[in-house]
Amino acid sequence: MSKKKRTIFFISDSTGITANVLGHSLLTQFDNIEFEQITLPYINTIDKVKSVIKRVNDVADHSGESPIVFSSMLRAEMRQLLTESKGHVIDLFGLFINELEDVFQQKASSEVGRSHRIDNKGKNNSSNASAYERRIDAVNFALQHDDGATAQHYEHADVILIGVSRCGKTPTSLFLAMQFGIFTANYPLTEEDVSDMRLPKVLAPYRHKLFGLTIKPERLQQIRQERRPNSRYSSSQQCQLEVQTLEALYRRLNIPHISTTTTSVEEIATMVLDATKLERRIY
Amino acid sequence: MSKKKRTIFFISDSTGITANVLGHSLLTQFDNIEFEQITLPYINTIDKVKSVIKRVNDVADHSGESPIVFSSMLRAEMRQLLTESKGHVIDLFGLFINELEDVFQQKASSEVGRSHRIDNKGKNNSSNASAYERRIDAVNFALQHDDGATAQHYEHADVILIGVSRCGKTPTSLFLAMQFGIFTANYPLTEEDVSDMRLPKVLAPYRHKLFGLTIKPERLQQIRQERRPNSRYSSSQQCQLEVQTLEALYRRLNIPHISTTTTSVEEIATMVLDATKLERRIY
Repeated sequence: MSKKKRTIFFISDSTGITANVLGHSLLTQFDNIEFEQITLPYINTIDKVKSVIKRVNDVADHSGESPIVFSSMLRAEMRQLLTESKGHVIDLFGLFINELEDVFQQKASSEVGRSHRIDNKGKNNSSNASAYERRIDAVNFALQHDDGATAQHYEHADVILIGVSRCGKTPTSLFLAMQFGIFTANYPLTEEDVSDMRLPKVLAPYRHKLFGLTIKPERLQQIRQERRPNSRYSSSQQCQLEVQTLEALYRRLNIPHISTTTTSVEEIATMVLDATKLERRIY
Repeated sequence: MSKKKRTIFFISDSTGITANVLGHSLLTQFDNIEFEQITLPYINTIDKVKSVIKRVNDVADHSGESPIVFSSMLRAEMRQLLTESKGHVIDLFGLFINELEDVFQQKASSEVGRSHRIDNKGKNNSSNASAYERRIDAVNFALQHDDGATAQHYEHADVILIGVSRCGKTPTSLFLAMQFGIFTANYPLTEEDVSDMRLPKVLAPYRHKLFGLTIKPERLQQIRQERRPNSRYSSSQQCQLEVQTLEALYRRLNIPHISTTTTSVEEIATMVLDATKLERRIY
């Protein structure tokens, strides 16, 4: 069966990232339709809205079908204007803002970019005071403390991820830093590091901050094989030994841990956040 | 004036990241209310929904006010159950799924985690076929090609960010990789590198992939001052010279560029994506 085609616009007065992700996850629920997705960020003037409408109408006229338009714009008059297009507009903000205004008995401010606006000094002046620097600081921390590079300032770490080489520590650390502003270090462990069923000295004082990642040996072997084919490092035996030793350590020391085998980076990061009860610092 | 307080729950059958970000940006539109935000991810069974309801009701009983409950759950019976709580439920999926079902004249699948599910081989089996590995690959590429570390494989780069030291290249590269799956390298330029108003040899063949970042000299000085106080590197004169030289080069070679001075990482990344017309590879 040939797939139906449909053009999807994401229109935002800001980055449009949230609308994009939400819209995409809604669309993945529909099979047998091929989506052409067009993202138009920073549509923040009436003139820009008008040229978007023209573009939407062109697609409607040429394809004979209404494009879907996911809109996330704060100013009511711009949302209103967009509904005059030939697209089928799904207004991600309008409805909820009205509902919240009712609940809070207060008008929304309709200012754009409040969640991450910064002023001329580079300081964030929203409620979310230092989100801007917090993200940069957290990313820098994750980079400096990647792969056990240094144990300096572990006292500032919110969490230290441990696990065998190639189990997903680095991307998870960076995701935790980037998305949540969590100060994350990571430290690779070999079976020799923990052969006496103890933590390396450098980690011992921070046991309460440790979070273990693990992975199925077969999957680990696949990943390592791509990196260093036919080496001891990527042998089935070595992968099995490392994973078994480390999982035994996690159990013995009661270190919380999860498997990354069938889990995406954002899922692992969310599980770490949930299990550690750390609070996200940025949105 | 003392602020009103309100408890906000974010309930998701998956990571809840999207609901969290969308809900947060809606809430930032309301002043004078202090929000206590509680995120509960992976609420994916009826029993878990029931214990969430108990928790929501406890807050309602103790505070005398209905908490706001942002819900993003795909299964209709779980969404339905949640509305029986004493919270004010804002259902981020329900409404839009129904609307899309009407437009597409097709039932949604209501399967959880379609947008980033992976199977036992670590392969993504949704429409979004290799999103899982794409993100990891893009992050690894960004790390390997950070700060001009190597020019190997520049042919695989989607974009190469250039700019003076400390203008935001690294976090932007990582954000582009993590959020959009864009293969991003970055290369630091000093005023000596470009003193003859030419690109360094290693960059010359990739001019069409270059994207320039710039920053106000005053802000650059602040940032460098924190890193290496009272050095030539952080002097007002040096910062001014580097920025001026580089901006002249951008103009001369017609390299697209933006200022990072008052712009957050996600905004810079979005602008780069928009200006280069690159398509995001993951959601």
